[in-house]
Amino acid sequence: MHPNDPRLRSFVEVGSSSHFPIQNLPYGVFSTPATPARRIGVAIGDFVLDLSVLEQERLLHPAPSPSIFSQTTINDFMSLGPHTWSEVRMRISELLRHDCGELRDNEKLRARALLPRDSVTLHLPLEVKGFTDFYSSKEHATNVGTMFRDKDNPLLPNWLHIPIGYNGRASTVVVSGTPIRRPLGQIKPPTSHDPVFGPCRRMDFELEMGVVVGQPSTMGEMLSEVEADALIFGFTLLNDWSARDIQQWEYVPLGPFQAKAFATSISPWIVTREALEPFRVQGPAQDPTPLPYLRQRGLNNYDINLDVALRSAEMRTAERISRTNFKYMYWSSIQQLVHHASSGCSLSVGDLMGSGTISGPEKHQRGSLLELSWGGAEPLELGSVPRTFLEDGDSVTITGYCQGDGYRVGFGEVEGTITRALGDSTSLAGGQ
Amino acid sequence: MHPNDPRLRSFVEVGSSSHFPIQNLPYGVFSTPATPARRIGVAIGDFVLDLSVLEQERLLHPAPSPSIFSQTTINDFMSLGPHTWSEVRMRISELLRHDCGELRDNEKLRARALLPRDSVTLHLPLEVKGFTDFYSSKEHATNVGTMFRDKDNPLLPNWLHIPIGYNGRASTVVVSGTPIRRPLGQIKPPTSHDPVFGPCRRMDFELEMGVVVGQPSTMGEMLSEVEADALIFGFTLLNDWSARDIQQWEYVPLGPFQAKAFATSISPWIVTREALEPFRVQGPAQDPTPLPYLRQRGLNNYDINLDVALRSAEMRTAERISRTNFKYMYWSSIQQLVHHASSGCSLSVGDLMGSGTISGPEKHQRGSLLELSWGGAEPLELGSVPRTFLEDGDSVTITGYCQGDGYRVGFGEVEGTITRALGDSTSLAGGQ
Repeated sequence: MHPNDPRLRSFVEVGSSSHFPIQNLPYGVFSTPATPARRIGVAIGDFVLDLSVLEQERLLHPAPSPSIFSQTTINDFMSLGPHTWSEVRMRISELLRHDCGELRDNEKLRARALLPRDSVTLHLPLEVKGFTDFYSSKEHATNVGTMFRDKDNPLLPNWLHIPIGYNGRASTVVVSGTPIRRPLGQIKPPTSHDPVFGPCRRMDFELEMGVVVGQPSTMGEMLSEVEADALIFGFTLLNDWSARDIQQWEYVPLGPFQAKAFATSISPWIVTREALEPFRVQGPAQDPTPLPYLRQRGLNNYDINLDVALRSAEMRTAERISRTNFKYMYWSSIQQLVHHASSGCSLSVGDLMGSGTISGPEKHQRGSLLELSWGGAEPLELGSVPRTFLEDGDSVTITGYCQGDGYRVGFGEVEGTITRALGDSTSLAGGQ
Repeated sequence: MHPNDPRLRSFVEVGSSSHFPIQNLPYGVFSTPATPARRIGVAIGDFVLDLSVLEQERLLHPAPSPSIFSQTTINDFMSLGPHTWSEVRMRISELLRHDCGELRDNEKLRARALLPRDSVTLHLPLEVKGFTDFYSSKEHATNVGTMFRDKDNPLLPNWLHIPIGYNGRASTVVVSGTPIRRPLGQIKPPTSHDPVFGPCRRMDFELEMGVVVGQPSTMGEMLSEVEADALIFGFTLLNDWSARDIQQWEYVPLGPFQAKAFATSISPWIVTREALEPFRVQGPAQDPTPLPYLRQRGLNNYDINLDVALRSAEMRTAERISRTNFKYMYWSSIQQLVHHASSGCSLSVGDLMGSGTISGPEKHQRGSLLELSWGGAEPLELGSVPRTFLEDGDSVTITGYCQGDGYRVGFGEVEGTITRALGDSTSLAGGQ
């Protein structure tokens, strides 16, 4: 049976609302107190399957390469290419099936290879080579344009022709759970002629998905729709933390820089493109018709339910503040990659591409506080306290899953808690 | 004697106009037909000193680390830190001195370790981790602002407060001599309502210097002036190839993307910060006074003479089209790094920071064709033919050196020749 077959069952117990049934098998990098070396595993139910153990035991035949799963990132595994990705997934699926005894009946091996998920530490699963962030939700771009530019003409003239994107900062992509320090930066208060340097006061999240590029493209060449699709290893949840006040002052004419550079969080599990195949859907109609190089025939959007929850330091439980879906994106990931390579720009194994903030047509589907609080003018009710932007101690959690028939292919979550800015701004060498 | 002492002489003959006297000793990565493995060397006169050979012969004591110079990039050497950089440079300087017999009198070793520079192939010397490009020449920003915005008010309000920068694309940084394919891209002709996809028609170079970061900084922390300086391993010449027409259509609101992503060229030799110490100068006065975190006490500019020459396919020799100096930069490299880290953005070993186009106060000191031809309105005379932007077959060469007393500390050159765009735009799957 194909590893995506809904009839497949694992001997590992998996509830119907678990994100990690045998149909998923996402890759992550983990360590344990007993074995602190990082290594690669897949999530299954409430467990992590340690692929480095299976590899040592020569259970992964055909073996993709010696000790590929003892590495500290999935980059080298990804570089082996789509054929290997499929073969390995097929074999892992087989080993986890309820009717396969190789692992199920080997108690010693099971104890070494299947580790309770809550007993492991999850790390950044890939070395991020380049980080590019797009701006591909029409609803998001319309909301931002309405607030800051022209409510009668919110989209800039290029928006319907180009999947607008910019290069982000790869060095500060961190894994879920990493605390996010509120950045300092230059801010120009509306009442002042000159900028000041101090803590961001309009700290925001952005709900995004990230595409992980698993194969390189050639410098000087373009990509077709089919070629771009084949480069994608998988998807992750992504929070593009944003300092709105820093951004507003710095972004002309060369785009966001320090307002985005301080941190980007991703979920620890990379869900493979293959596992998402059953959830491909048609994207929104595109009008005007894109230029020929951007036209697409395939179902290049994905039906992924997405939730954002916020919990302040005072709250016992998080409150959901946004619920939307990845399928609303105007420009697909494929179109983004095709455009990214259109000048001859080469893509690399380990590139991460943010989708851009994912907002839906309804108010509760907005993917940032900027939009949810309409630039701060319409505060949310959070634990019955009005709220505009993020405060110190706030924890933001994004979750996402595809709903199959009786099972879910999920992404787990990406969480980040805001910690207070470096020093007190007045005591800093750089403060004023 | 200190390796920068002007009295030092090498047993390797070095003319007074050579870029590579014993006071320089820049690092590069090279291979030879006989030994195609890449390895690390320093330039001396018309030779390359193969450091992997010295390392094998245990002549580099204190040895920084086993086989650090047999690697294919200088990243691991850089990661050893400034103390090691100085020690190694001191030892190499000693071995090359006219009065040191260790290498000079060992004919066999000399034959293995000193290779004629014209017999080696030079490669990209570092793995570029992140590429950031700044916009720090006041003359350049003023020229661009005058052309495209408001001649009475050419600088945007933030320019005098922030060393404006953006994240560029690291995967397409290439070494001097790599042909540069004219990019395709979306262009909106002034006469058309809709964009077209085709070859760039306003292809340009940008004369820049690149800073190579040799030490990491910590995420969430800031850098002082002194700390930022200490992270810098060295400098290189940099040509930030630019597709002006693609840029004009794509750059709002998130900055340049494909217009810059197709290629950036650097010179093959990284001149160390230490070798440039004698050429530090005061930068231009900054008014208004920068915010406290950006204030500087040191001499953070460098007196580096810079030349740009252009040769079309029809010309026998290149013509100089620009002559300027790095010392004119308004924002120093130190201020750029301090600002880059100000939000808590971590810097990495192997980061490359472009200075931004270097233009001087005079017309002949402009660092791009955009400025030299004033947006195409005032063509240059090139081989007595009027010229605005780059044509296929054009070769652009940037050179640069510091003038000492009787010697030069130079950068060699960065050259790139424009080749024709991919296919014929009408025959492309992506064309129209």
